[in-house]
Amino acid sequence: MMQTQIIIDSWNTTVQHTSDLLTKLGEEKMMKAVAPNRNRGIYLVGHLTAAHDAMLPLLGFREVMFPELKDSFLRNPDNLEPLPFTATDLIQKWTAVNDELKKHFNHLSTEDWLQKHNTVSEEDFAKEPHRNKLNVVLSRTIHLSYHQGQLALLK
Amino acid sequence: MMQTQIIIDSWNTTVQHTSDLLTKLGEEKMMKAVAPNRNRGIYLVGHLTAAHDAMLPLLGFREVMFPELKDSFLRNPDNLEPLPFTATDLIQKWTAVNDELKKHFNHLSTEDWLQKHNTVSEEDFAKEPHRNKLNVVLSRTIHLSYHQGQLALLK
Repeated sequence: MMQTQIIIDSWNTTVQHTSDLLTKLGEEKMMKAVAPNRNRGIYLVGHLTAAHDAMLPLLGFREVMFPELKDSFLRNPDNLEPLPFTATDLIQKWTAVNDELKKHFNHLSTEDWLQKHNTVSEEDFAKEPHRNKLNVVLSRTIHLSYHQGQLALLK
Repeated sequence: MMQTQIIIDSWNTTVQHTSDLLTKLGEEKMMKAVAPNRNRGIYLVGHLTAAHDAMLPLLGFREVMFPELKDSFLRNPDNLEPLPFTATDLIQKWTAVNDELKKHFNHLSTEDWLQKHNTVSEEDFAKEPHRNKLNVVLSRTIHLSYHQGQLALLK
């Protein structure tokens, strides 16, 4: 199905562009804030990794891989204090989470993609069939690009 | 067709979020650079408006509405010098272009969305059928979100 594929392709491309950008930035630039008094690069990498990790249970694939990221990167904004993770560690987790997602994506049929995600009830899904797995990937692609635009300011 | 609709819906939502953000920022904040020595808000609004205007001929709808934007916002980066447009003027053009696109979007069937866009040849399209109109909308949504993430730093 063409439309499903272009959404998956755009996810893959956006993840790849972010990975390339992170490699280019390196650990030192990632310690800087993207603009004065805004999130640091390292915070955004942790935030994106935690957001993508949360897709694993949301899409019904498995439990999260790195629950320890939730407190630092989803529950709280960047307080600009030292983090319990290095940039190198976070980039490894970023890669691991996206590789795991891709592995599961490859097993889904077009029909699977249109099934409900795991935080919508059967009853709500009957009324709102757009709350499907494919839509999760699309909205997270847009979320990723939003923060990628900010990370690019560190170049 | 569900997949086509979720792409169009995500376009509409992302455009709306950017419009809300621009209203919130106002003319004064838009004159600032999103980070030191980076594009100003007003430049990004012009850039996004010109990029969306260019979708009108690309999707086969009509000629561009504001050809005068091309030099300042597509051919050249922000040189941080005075621009021949005010922020208010650019926001009006931003709204006009997106309204025009929406009008045309509403007339397209799922089949129309899978037709080739206007910068791919018939021959290439036969080999690369993902180079269709829907993919243009998806890639521009991701482009918009990238710059929206930067504009949000002006809040």
